[in-house]
Amino acid sequence: MDEFSFIRSIAPSAYQQSSIIKGIGDDAAVFRPSGQDVVTAVDTMVDGVHFSLETMKPYHIGYRALAANISDLAAMGSVPAFYLVSVVVPPEWNSTGLEELYRGMKDLAAQYRMDVIGGDTVSGSELSVSITVIGYVDKDKGRYRSDARAGDVVFVTGTLGDSRAGLECLLKGSTVNDEEKTFLIHRHQMPEPRASFAQALAGVERLALNDISDGMANEANEIAEASEVDIHLEKEQIPFTPTVKEFFSDYYDEWMLAGGEDFELMGTVSAEEWPEVIKAADRVGLKVSKVGIVKEKQKDNPMVYLHEQGTKRVVTKTGYTHLTKKGE
Amino acid sequence: MDEFSFIRSIAPSAYQQSSIIKGIGDDAAVFRPSGQDVVTAVDTMVDGVHFSLETMKPYHIGYRALAANISDLAAMGSVPAFYLVSVVVPPEWNSTGLEELYRGMKDLAAQYRMDVIGGDTVSGSELSVSITVIGYVDKDKGRYRSDARAGDVVFVTGTLGDSRAGLECLLKGSTVNDEEKTFLIHRHQMPEPRASFAQALAGVERLALNDISDGMANEANEIAEASEVDIHLEKEQIPFTPTVKEFFSDYYDEWMLAGGEDFELMGTVSAEEWPEVIKAADRVGLKVSKVGIVKEKQKDNPMVYLHEQGTKRVVTKTGYTHLTKKGE
Repeated sequence: MDEFSFIRSIAPSAYQQSSIIKGIGDDAAVFRPSGQDVVTAVDTMVDGVHFSLETMKPYHIGYRALAANISDLAAMGSVPAFYLVSVVVPPEWNSTGLEELYRGMKDLAAQYRMDVIGGDTVSGSELSVSITVIGYVDKDKGRYRSDARAGDVVFVTGTLGDSRAGLECLLKGSTVNDEEKTFLIHRHQMPEPRASFAQALAGVERLALNDISDGMANEANEIAEASEVDIHLEKEQIPFTPTVKEFFSDYYDEWMLAGGEDFELMGTVSAEEWPEVIKAADRVGLKVSKVGIVKEKQKDNPMVYLHEQGTKRVVTKTGYTHLTKKGE
Repeated sequence: MDEFSFIRSIAPSAYQQSSIIKGIGDDAAVFRPSGQDVVTAVDTMVDGVHFSLETMKPYHIGYRALAANISDLAAMGSVPAFYLVSVVVPPEWNSTGLEELYRGMKDLAAQYRMDVIGGDTVSGSELSVSITVIGYVDKDKGRYRSDARAGDVVFVTGTLGDSRAGLECLLKGSTVNDEEKTFLIHRHQMPEPRASFAQALAGVERLALNDISDGMANEANEIAEASEVDIHLEKEQIPFTPTVKEFFSDYYDEWMLAGGEDFELMGTVSAEEWPEVIKAADRVGLKVSKVGIVKEKQKDNPMVYLHEQGTKRVVTKTGYTHLTKKGE
């Protein structure tokens, strides 16, 4: 199928977003924000690097690629509106595979009434999917990782490590029972970005927010660095799916900190507003857990620590931990 | 170099666009349009398909990829503001090559005071560059290909076929003198999108506009289709660089219609406003040529015709032409 007829085939017959002025079918798309700020991010996934066709069907690749992008919008507190997608398609792919990939995106987009407003499908030797997302946020209500303050509660949504455990089930199988296995695999192939929760937090005055795409260790360090604070995590408070701890006891610690791709949110909020965060989570039926606190930084560089039964370990971006030395 | 340190290395130290709220360094970027419409498009180029490292240096690849995208914004009548870039980098590339590629984009972006506000650099087996551009246009002043009307003047900017001739010089050499060869190669490697001209046209009431990325034959057909009109081109009026006609006489016709990648603009405007277009071109020092007229469509499908010394040929999207049959 040639590029132009394919792009026309994915053009929506009707647009969901009322701010659309010109959709697919000209040199570019046009939209009209109504006094809100515009939020945008791009993310690219390559076959063999970010996913494998052995563990993901084309449908999942599309779904997950868009989920990762929506997750970035959620982490800014913004409401998803549009996406533009660019796919490099290798010669062995047929149009069915490509249609399935787009259907995965479309199904997820429908949940947020997002419209596809641009696209490019080009030939290449290796499958890659690049998505640009666009969302709206009320003026000066963007949620930045630089907004953590000493005294804040540190929280995460959902459970961590599920996606990595799901991948393990796909790659190596496991003795996890079928129902639990299906759950974990679903978490890997079709992660749910926390955009509704992020919107439910709109009333909170100050909030630092990051999405957990590269593991909690990385995101906590990013917040600590951007806000110039120390973050202290309590290992016992980090939320997990019992199956993961039970069946993958050797890897559980590592996946919890560095597994990534759960697309949960990590944030910090003042102790006064923490109850508002709990209420927001309740309203959207999502679990939220306090996992630590923010303190003034004690050294030149902001640090992340993991406390467990009286021990205190330094946590690096990659999830590596080591015991603190005396006075550290 | 790891992905994160690279992205930080390309983050601007200061942003040119006053509407930027949050640049690179969080989950997404934030900007604040001031009552204008927002225009956006994505375009992807793959090594071996859209360019070759044999004829383009990394600097040119970056420059040309962004030029193609700015050209889309120009064709909508919009002012370029931001871009997000995603590069798939093969293992044999070193950081110097990647820096050169970004430098090519940055140099062109500087001409339009555009800011890079997002990026992703990922590993893969094959170089590809995907760029999303964002621009502003006054409300309801977007220039659409559906706005051509019977009686309009059809015009193009600059000269056509230069980029293709430049590629030929690079691939096969030629007997063109050095100065002319340098000009043609420059047109291929560092095309100048016509964004300033598009902005100079702001006062024109109605205008259909397309950028010539896939050849004049394709763009004329797109305007004809979208506006449901016939377009009649006069071959003698189509602007060319004399060298191209002289040295590439066997290919000149083909390149003029289907060469593409000149990134000139093609448009239609009422005869009353045509002088305004000429004035706008004068103001930015650009050549603009009347190349035909728009007529009511005579058949079920909109058609593009090429007239030459009494003959009349049908022009397809790919640049193929055939003589009209009696009554056609």
